[in-house]
Amino acid sequence: MFIRLSHGLARVRVRYFLKADVSPMSVENQIETFRFTPEELQIDWQDGQTSRLHCVWLRDHCQMPSSRNAQNGQRLMNVTDFPDDLRIEGVTQQANGDLVVAFAPEGHESVFSQAWLLNNCYCLNATFDDRSEAAKTLWDAESFSSLSFTDYQHYCQDERAKRDCLQQVRDHGFALLSGVPCDEGQILEVIRTFGFCRETNYGPLFDVRTVVDPNNLAFSNLGLGCHADNPYRDPVPTVQLLHCLASSTEGGDSILVDGFKAASILRQEAPEHFEQLCRQYLNYRFSDATTELRSRVPMIEVDDRGYVTKVRYNNRSIDTVRLAPESVAAFYQAYRHYAGILERPELKLTFKLRPGDLVVFDNTRVMHARTAFSAGGQRHLQGAYADLDGLYSTLAVLERARNTNELVQGALA
Amino acid sequence: MFIRLSHGLARVRVRYFLKADVSPMSVENQIETFRFTPEELQIDWQDGQTSRLHCVWLRDHCQMPSSRNAQNGQRLMNVTDFPDDLRIEGVTQQANGDLVVAFAPEGHESVFSQAWLLNNCYCLNATFDDRSEAAKTLWDAESFSSLSFTDYQHYCQDERAKRDCLQQVRDHGFALLSGVPCDEGQILEVIRTFGFCRETNYGPLFDVRTVVDPNNLAFSNLGLGCHADNPYRDPVPTVQLLHCLASSTEGGDSILVDGFKAASILRQEAPEHFEQLCRQYLNYRFSDATTELRSRVPMIEVDDRGYVTKVRYNNRSIDTVRLAPESVAAFYQAYRHYAGILERPELKLTFKLRPGDLVVFDNTRVMHARTAFSAGGQRHLQGAYADLDGLYSTLAVLERARNTNELVQGALA
Repeated sequence: MFIRLSHGLARVRVRYFLKADVSPMSVENQIETFRFTPEELQIDWQDGQTSRLHCVWLRDHCQMPSSRNAQNGQRLMNVTDFPDDLRIEGVTQQANGDLVVAFAPEGHESVFSQAWLLNNCYCLNATFDDRSEAAKTLWDAESFSSLSFTDYQHYCQDERAKRDCLQQVRDHGFALLSGVPCDEGQILEVIRTFGFCRETNYGPLFDVRTVVDPNNLAFSNLGLGCHADNPYRDPVPTVQLLHCLASSTEGGDSILVDGFKAASILRQEAPEHFEQLCRQYLNYRFSDATTELRSRVPMIEVDDRGYVTKVRYNNRSIDTVRLAPESVAAFYQAYRHYAGILERPELKLTFKLRPGDLVVFDNTRVMHARTAFSAGGQRHLQGAYADLDGLYSTLAVLERARNTNELVQGALA
Repeated sequence: MFIRLSHGLARVRVRYFLKADVSPMSVENQIETFRFTPEELQIDWQDGQTSRLHCVWLRDHCQMPSSRNAQNGQRLMNVTDFPDDLRIEGVTQQANGDLVVAFAPEGHESVFSQAWLLNNCYCLNATFDDRSEAAKTLWDAESFSSLSFTDYQHYCQDERAKRDCLQQVRDHGFALLSGVPCDEGQILEVIRTFGFCRETNYGPLFDVRTVVDPNNLAFSNLGLGCHADNPYRDPVPTVQLLHCLASSTEGGDSILVDGFKAASILRQEAPEHFEQLCRQYLNYRFSDATTELRSRVPMIEVDDRGYVTKVRYNNRSIDTVRLAPESVAAFYQAYRHYAGILERPELKLTFKLRPGDLVVFDNTRVMHARTAFSAGGQRHLQGAYADLDGLYSTLAVLERARNTNELVQGALA
C-alpha cells in the first residue's frame, strides 16, 4: 500500500492499484510522479503542471488532528515549534492517492490528499483576493444600461436575491434596494441582514436632512463633489448606507463614482501622478467641539502587487498638507489630476433616490456626491456605517450554500 | 498699513510700526523678511528659519470664510476649482503681522496669520502621526518596575485619570483598570467611556470561560502563544478589552508583548527578514459553519517612511500561504525569526488579572497570550472590541482641555 521513497532525488512513476477500500474519490489519481529532496517535494500532475512544495511550508500546513482544530481549521502549532533542521525524510503514496510526508528529526508524519495539494499548492493557486481592483469589475456611467433596484422584501425572503445584491457590492462596489420601509432607524435593520453597524461619534446612524429655504439657497450647493466619508477615521468605515425617507426637492440626485476606475485612468494617463498619490501619505482631519479625528494615510493605497485596494478622496477633510518641500508641487499636480478625473461626467453614475430606496456602497472604493437642489421641498436621508468583513462573510456563506446545493444537484442529476 | 510688493523676487525688510488698533498678539512680529515668485512665497523668520510655501498649497490652505467652514475648518472648495495658471500676484503684510496673498488670475486674496503660517508651514512642521512606532514608547518586560492599575471609579470621575489612562494606550499600547464592577456586560460600559463597540460575528462581547477539568487538561495549554485577535478581519478591530469576572485557577496569567518592539528587534537583527514580512502579503482566515472571514495583509505594515504602523501576528489563523515559489523559503525564515522574538521571555510582560481588573490594548500593536492553568478552578473573562479612532478622539479632546486650562492658568499666574 505504501511506496516509500529513499531519501534523495529518486523519481518514481506512481502505479496505481484499485482496491476495495479505496473511496470513489481516489479512482482518479492526479499525480503523475513525485520526488523530493530534504528541502522540497515536487509533484508532476497528470495534466502537465508541477508543484514544488517547501519542507517548512508542508509542515506548517499539516492537516492532521494534532496540527489543526477540526472545527475551524486553525493551527494548533507554532512555526517556532519546528526544529531548525526540519527536513523531508520520506514521501509515500497511499492507495487512495494521499501523500504521506515524513519529517525529520521530528518523526512527524503528515497526510495530504491530492485534492488538498492541488487546491492549496502555492505554485498552482493564486493568493485569495476580494478587495483589490484585480478582483473587481471597474465601471463608468456607460457600464449600466439601466440600474436595477432589488425589492427589499425579496432581498429578505430569497437568499439568492440577497446573495446577488451582496455580490454587486463586492464586484461593483454598490447595490440598490427599493421598498425599504420609510421608518427612522430602519437602516440599522438593513445592516443586520449582512453585518454589523459601525457606530461613530455621529451615532449609530445620522440624518442628512435638508429643507430648502428660498431665502437661503446657499446650503444646497456647498461642497457636494465626489468624496469618500470619514477618511480622517482609521480604520475608516468600509461600508456606507444611505436610506431615503423623503425626497420632494427637484435636483438632489445621488451620484456614485468608481474610485478604482478613476485611479486606473490616472495610472494610465500619468503613472507618475498615480505613484505620487500612493507614496505621499496625508493627514485627514475632522475637528469640532467634542471630536478630534486624525489619520495618516495615502489617497490611493496599493498592495504588494501594486493593485489598488483603497482610495480615500475627500477634498474637504484633508488636514494641512505637510510633505517634503520638494514634493509639494508634484503632489498637487497629481492630486488635481485625480480630482479632475473624479469629476468627469462620463464617470458619474447619477440616479434619484426615492422614498424607500437605499444605496449601500463600499466606502473604500466608491465615491459619492449629490447634485444641487433647484427648487423648494424636503429631502431626508438616514445614513449609517458598517464594515466589509461582515458583508463579505455573509456573502461567502451564501455562496458556499450555493456551491453545496449545486454539488448536491449535480450528484443527483 | 499694507506693504505691497511688486511681482518678482523683491526682498523687503519689514519695518513694523505699532498703531493703536494693533492687537496685543501682533506686538511680536516673527517675520524677518518675505519675498515671492509666482510659484512660491518665501518667509525668513526672525529665529533664522525659512519657510518656502508653494502657490497652490497656499491657495488650498486659504483660511477665509469663503474657503473654509468656520465650525469645523473643512474646505469649501476643490483643487479642481483653481485655474491651471494659478500664481501669486502680490504679498503684503498687515499691521497685525498677517500676510495677505493675492492670487492671479482669480483675484482671490487670502489672509494668513503669522501664527498659522508658523504652525502649519510644511517646512517647519512634521506630519501628524499618532500611530506609527515613531510616535510610541517601545517597551519590554523590564521597562515597567511595577504595573499601575487605575481605579475605575477614579477613571470615571477624574478626567485627568482618564486622560492618563488613554495616553497609556496611545503611548504603550495598553492600560490596566481595577475595580470594574464584576457584572456581565460591564465591559460595554467601559467602552462607552472612550468610544464605540465594534460588534462582530462573536457578538458585541464574547466570553472566555474555562473550567479546568482534571480529566481533561488538554484545553489549558492549547495555542495560547502571543497573538493579535482577528487578523482575518479587514478592517481589524483596533482596540481589544478583556475584563476579568472570575479567576480562581492557578496559572492563567495574562501576557502582553509589544509587537512594535519585536518588529524593531527583527529589523535590527535581520533587516532582510523585516523587509520580507512587510513585503509579502498573507491571507488570514477564519471559517466555521456560519462565518467565512478572509483578509490579505502583510504581517508587518509600514508607512511611507518605513515606520511600523501595524503588526498582525497570529500563527493559528494564517490561511494557506501562497507566495511566489522562490519566496517561500525566505518568508518562513523571516516568519520564524519574528515568531521567535515574540516568544522571548524578556519581551513578555506577565501579570495576573483578578476579578474586577480590565486590560485595554491596541490590537494593531500589542500581542496577548495566556499561561497555562496548573490547577483546578474557574476563569471567566469577557472580551470586546472597539476602535482607536474613538479612543484617540476622546484623548485629544481631554488633552485639548488640559492645554486650554494650562493656558488659562498661565495667563492668570
